[in-house]
Amino acid sequence: MIVAMQEGASEDQIQKVIERLVNMGFEVHRSTGTLQTVLGAVGARSDFDIRDIEVISGVAEVHRISAPYKLAGRSFRPEGTVIKFKNGVTLGGNQVHVMAGPCSVESRAQLFAVAEAVQRSGATFLRGGAFKPRSSPYSFQGLGLEALKLLREAGDKSGMLVVSEVMEISQIELMAPYVDMYQVGARNMQNFNLLRELGKARKPVLLKRGIAATIEELLLSAEYLMAGGNYEVILCERGIRTFETYTRNTLDISAIPIVHKLSHLPIVADPSHGTGRRDKVSPMGRAAVAAGADAILVEVHNEPEKALSDGAQSLYPEQFARLMDELRMIAPAVGRKLA
Amino acid sequence: MIVAMQEGASEDQIQKVIERLVNMGFEVHRSTGTLQTVLGAVGARSDFDIRDIEVISGVAEVHRISAPYKLAGRSFRPEGTVIKFKNGVTLGGNQVHVMAGPCSVESRAQLFAVAEAVQRSGATFLRGGAFKPRSSPYSFQGLGLEALKLLREAGDKSGMLVVSEVMEISQIELMAPYVDMYQVGARNMQNFNLLRELGKARKPVLLKRGIAATIEELLLSAEYLMAGGNYEVILCERGIRTFETYTRNTLDISAIPIVHKLSHLPIVADPSHGTGRRDKVSPMGRAAVAAGADAILVEVHNEPEKALSDGAQSLYPEQFARLMDELRMIAPAVGRKLA
Amino acid sequence: MIVAMQEGASEDQIQKVIERLVNMGFEVHRSTGTLQTVLGAVGARSDFDIRDIEVISGVAEVHRISAPYKLAGRSFRPEGTVIKFKNGVTLGGNQVHVMAGPCSVESRAQLFAVAEAVQRSGATFLRGGAFKPRSSPYSFQGLGLEALKLLREAGDKSGMLVVSEVMEISQIELMAPYVDMYQVGARNMQNFNLLRELGKARKPVLLKRGIAATIEELLLSAEYLMAGGNYEVILCERGIRTFETYTRNTLDISAIPIVHKLSHLPIVADPSHGTGRRDKVSPMGRAAVAAGADAILVEVHNEPEKALSDGAQSLYPEQFARLMDELRMIAPAVGRKLA
Amino acid sequence: MIVAMQEGASEDQIQKVIERLVNMGFEVHRSTGTLQTVLGAVGARSDFDIRDIEVISGVAEVHRISAPYKLAGRSFRPEGTVIKFKNGVTLGGNQVHVMAGPCSVESRAQLFAVAEAVQRSGATFLRGGAFKPRSSPYSFQGLGLEALKLLREAGDKSGMLVVSEVMEISQIELMAPYVDMYQVGARNMQNFNLLRELGKARKPVLLKRGIAATIEELLLSAEYLMAGGNYEVILCERGIRTFETYTRNTLDISAIPIVHKLSHLPIVADPSHGTGRRDKVSPMGRAAVAAGADAILVEVHNEPEKALSDGAQSLYPEQFARLMDELRMIAPAVGRKLA
Repeated sequence: MIVAMQEGASEDQIQKVIERLVNMGFEVHRSTGTLQTVLGAVGARSDFDIRDIEVISGVAEVHRISAPYKLAGRSFRPEGTVIKFKNGVTLGGNQVHVMAGPCSVESRAQLFAVAEAVQRSGATFLRGGAFKPRSSPYSFQGLGLEALKLLREAGDKSGMLVVSEVMEISQIELMAPYVDMYQVGARNMQNFNLLRELGKARKPVLLKRGIAATIEELLLSAEYLMAGGNYEVILCERGIRTFETYTRNTLDISAIPIVHKLSHLPIVADPSHGTGRRDKVSPMGRAAVAAGADAILVEVHNEPEKALSDGAQSLYPEQFARLMDELRMIAPAVGRKLA
Repeated sequence: MIVAMQEGASEDQIQKVIERLVNMGFEVHRSTGTLQTVLGAVGARSDFDIRDIEVISGVAEVHRISAPYKLAGRSFRPEGTVIKFKNGVTLGGNQVHVMAGPCSVESRAQLFAVAEAVQRSGATFLRGGAFKPRSSPYSFQGLGLEALKLLREAGDKSGMLVVSEVMEISQIELMAPYVDMYQVGARNMQNFNLLRELGKARKPVLLKRGIAATIEELLLSAEYLMAGGNYEVILCERGIRTFETYTRNTLDISAIPIVHKLSHLPIVADPSHGTGRRDKVSPMGRAAVAAGADAILVEVHNEPEKALSDGAQSLYPEQFARLMDELRMIAPAVGRKLA
Repeated sequence: MIVAMQEGASEDQIQKVIERLVNMGFEVHRSTGTLQTVLGAVGARSDFDIRDIEVISGVAEVHRISAPYKLAGRSFRPEGTVIKFKNGVTLGGNQVHVMAGPCSVESRAQLFAVAEAVQRSGATFLRGGAFKPRSSPYSFQGLGLEALKLLREAGDKSGMLVVSEVMEISQIELMAPYVDMYQVGARNMQNFNLLRELGKARKPVLLKRGIAATIEELLLSAEYLMAGGNYEVILCERGIRTFETYTRNTLDISAIPIVHKLSHLPIVADPSHGTGRRDKVSPMGRAAVAAGADAILVEVHNEPEKALSDGAQSLYPEQFARLMDELRMIAPAVGRKLA
Repeated sequence: MIVAMQEGASEDQIQKVIERLVNMGFEVHRSTGTLQTVLGAVGARSDFDIRDIEVISGVAEVHRISAPYKLAGRSFRPEGTVIKFKNGVTLGGNQVHVMAGPCSVESRAQLFAVAEAVQRSGATFLRGGAFKPRSSPYSFQGLGLEALKLLREAGDKSGMLVVSEVMEISQIELMAPYVDMYQVGARNMQNFNLLRELGKARKPVLLKRGIAATIEELLLSAEYLMAGGNYEVILCERGIRTFETYTRNTLDISAIPIVHKLSHLPIVADPSHGTGRRDKVSPMGRAAVAAGADAILVEVHNEPEKALSDGAQSLYPEQFARLMDELRMIAPAVGRKLA
């Protein structure tokens, strides 16, 4: 932490700040110039609140000098994390993966039709929602356990890995036999109770960025998972809220190279939620791979116009097939290969 | 819902949209002008996704014409909701209330010192956190059940009502004997599982606005609680994220008159979280009452510089006393009285 | 400037950064801890781009430790700036002022009717737009010079000072005989060519905050004016863009106490543009005064429903009179008096 | 415009709204359902303020049903606009162009070195700033006319077209002999006086999106230029302000497909300003082309560490060459070819 005292701060004020820093466990370096005194506070703790210093009289500004996360930081594992799944699939390495499926599992027929179609086009992960509490209390809420069983069956049949969203602690156990990766939704990115429990799980977690979260906050949530012992964390950019109203969210493509710089964890982009409109999904999916994403997550539905949720952002199977072809051309431009 | 077709949309395109709307259960009114056809769709459902229509070919724009909430809307109870607490205190009426206390309950001595001070200055509700999962996994996490017992005891001793935050479903039962009102934090505003369970509780709920939530989204979360049968909902503006970095959040004072117009529910402002800095709490607390808030929620600590959380935004007891005096002068300007 | 090197940065990397800082004219203090080296760079220049250091290899983070403005900062004039107008009116002192008038000057009859009404209720400044280039090229564009003459005449007749918006350099001279204060609109807050010329003017300037500007950026624009020699700068909060769509903008009331802390310049709030809706103007005007604003700026129209611009946010004269009565009750709560 | 009356609005209220709409020149279609009356107002005008209707008593909600722009809309020229430059270069067609050069023209040697390098790698437009008023009044302000002459000379020598920023009306004439395209910066996107004059110019205009502007606002600014008679408008996405602080701005890649849907005008992306950091420029430049951009605008400097402005976001010539190679691989994935 760096504390810049106000010009003209008194020696007494400076001493009070030093004392406080020492009490907080920091080692303090003082540097007094002609105009201003600056204090450098170095130490092992990262859980302090810089406002505690900011409000002391005579203090002009305070800055952290270290990231508030450790395990999620690039320097913890400079070579990058590669996550290995049971069937030998690896995420974070040279291959670019595509995770696809319907927003919600609606029926056996629907799920198997979609699964078959996306697998044929090259998807390696099957996604589908089982629990769907929605922003309106009057909407379809998901098939629950039945959906999980169908996902497992469809995944096994098609040779795809299964990913589905976990929304509360009680579902962790329930989902364990059926999924290969837990997904944490944007609204739960800072549900720290849930993150703590998932930190004890022994399965990879796909952690989505909150709609108003900074990348630092996303990495701090990853830190929660990792601090609990689960190092298999995959980050996911799924769109942030901006002033633009034409799209539902604004997919922050720049998050991809930023995460690759700040962290060793793989990063996935979700152009479906990131735009909310079918005709924007393919351009943004291509952009994500061109920017270096390790995977993309795409909603596909065999009959989007009849979908019970998010039909407007689901690709038709033939659109998905075309997108896959485009991605095959783009991946080599970033030195990679579509899985 | 209003559907504006593109200029030059074909009759076939128009018929397809009408058909879809009828299938969704709407009654459709068509109005064809020289340039453009506009369809008005009226019906009882409010849980549709307007994007399902937006993506149909030939459609230019789609707008909802009714709020997606009903029970939380002003027209449901035009005279406004007044919530009565066991000791006769009413919220939403002519009196302006102040809810005060420490961010976290840290010890018996701390809580009782603060409670005694704020009650003496005129506070009618005692607030204090029992469960404190924090954005860093390495920080103080709260005293839990012990904190709840201390809150009850301090509330009873001082004659104040008790409010504390509930963070997961399992805590609803646990907290019931100790609190007079549940608080739902900003991060849980869209934790629909939690809201659904609180809808079955028989205690008032103070629902905080999410940091990037619109007022419509806040009202839709209130709808969740009310749809479950709990009509004693109090809304709370606690600051939204903006580009301004000087304060932690930007307290949206305009949310107060907006909520009063759109909804019948009482609205409270939290200038402590809304600014994150002690010296901004009093000006913003005064502003909230001047704008018509039904209550304000203020963090007070007997020794803020030793607080285990949010000390930087906690008032000293003497600052709080001065604020109360200022509020006594302002309330009459809006035709009200400090409780 | 503080430069935190990455953990494990090499001595060579550290030396390159020091060299660069010295070349930029800084005096460098080095502090090497067990984990990390931190460099403090102190100097008189404030016009550097911290990204020039951020991109050097081995650098983890860079922070400014001094505000990029000097003249506009509180420490330049700790006692605060009080601006004296020709008729003895002072802004920034103990009195709270109200500036009122129509959005656009539309006709002699309209302006004089409004001027008479607002003066009777206690306004001390008359506002009115002469040049109105609008976001649609097809809208009313203002009366220009004729409006300025009418404003002067109405101001003189009623004993009010005149304020009107200047939009380009060529208007500075043109407006000089007619106005007592130039207003710079939100869209021109960073029109540095205009600011530089206004810095040479010998009249006060009311500088509005841009809709996406931080307070630091607002102060930096004030610095432009002051660097040119014009120290009579009044800042104006007029609403920022947020995700809330119910209001046109979100009036950031917290900007008032923040400006008072960071700067010595007076701060005015504009609840008319800040909300865009007539029924929100009075609550927000009251809130601004309760938070310590030195003045408020309010649009009033004798027949808002016939206004050529911004009628929806203009108060009726009788609403304005009521607001003035409310402000008279609130000002004493902050130790002030309505002028 | 669509006006939804409140449930229970009186016949008298409805008649008042209809009367007002008719006075505004609209043809009104009324549709009264069991709960609610909805009015459709159709007409040729696009310069109304919907708030004028919103504030009438009994009105629940008002929506525009037509875009406030006409000439800039896709339906004005469904086949898309292709802009032809004097040397036969076309923008908006099958070819993807790259515009490159230094942020500021600093010297003859610098400009020619950069021009030669970017032309060799395949750039077809040379960019460079002549006028550089900066956010700090104490920074380098540009070489002015001398820069323009150097740009022309370097452009002619290398066979590249020249683009440079125009900042005020008086510069339009001055720049005319030297540039092939005017650039309007983000801060001037709503400088309507400047846009009106550029509408009379007979040269293409590259119009940058403001940092907090919606795409609709960008198109409305394009409308200003076109309403003045200049149909050669190229839009430019250059990053918007978001909560993310790691990058200077967030490049909104989704603006590319959105503009292609809503408008017939070509769209360019500026990954240099859009990120503010050299190491993010190439990933975002690739993403822009993958999403369908008609061109990208890139800052390149022969010695970025000595640049007088924006050195931190300027590519080294060899980085630029590599980016061009990557773009050559990506363009075919969207059915295009690098020029």
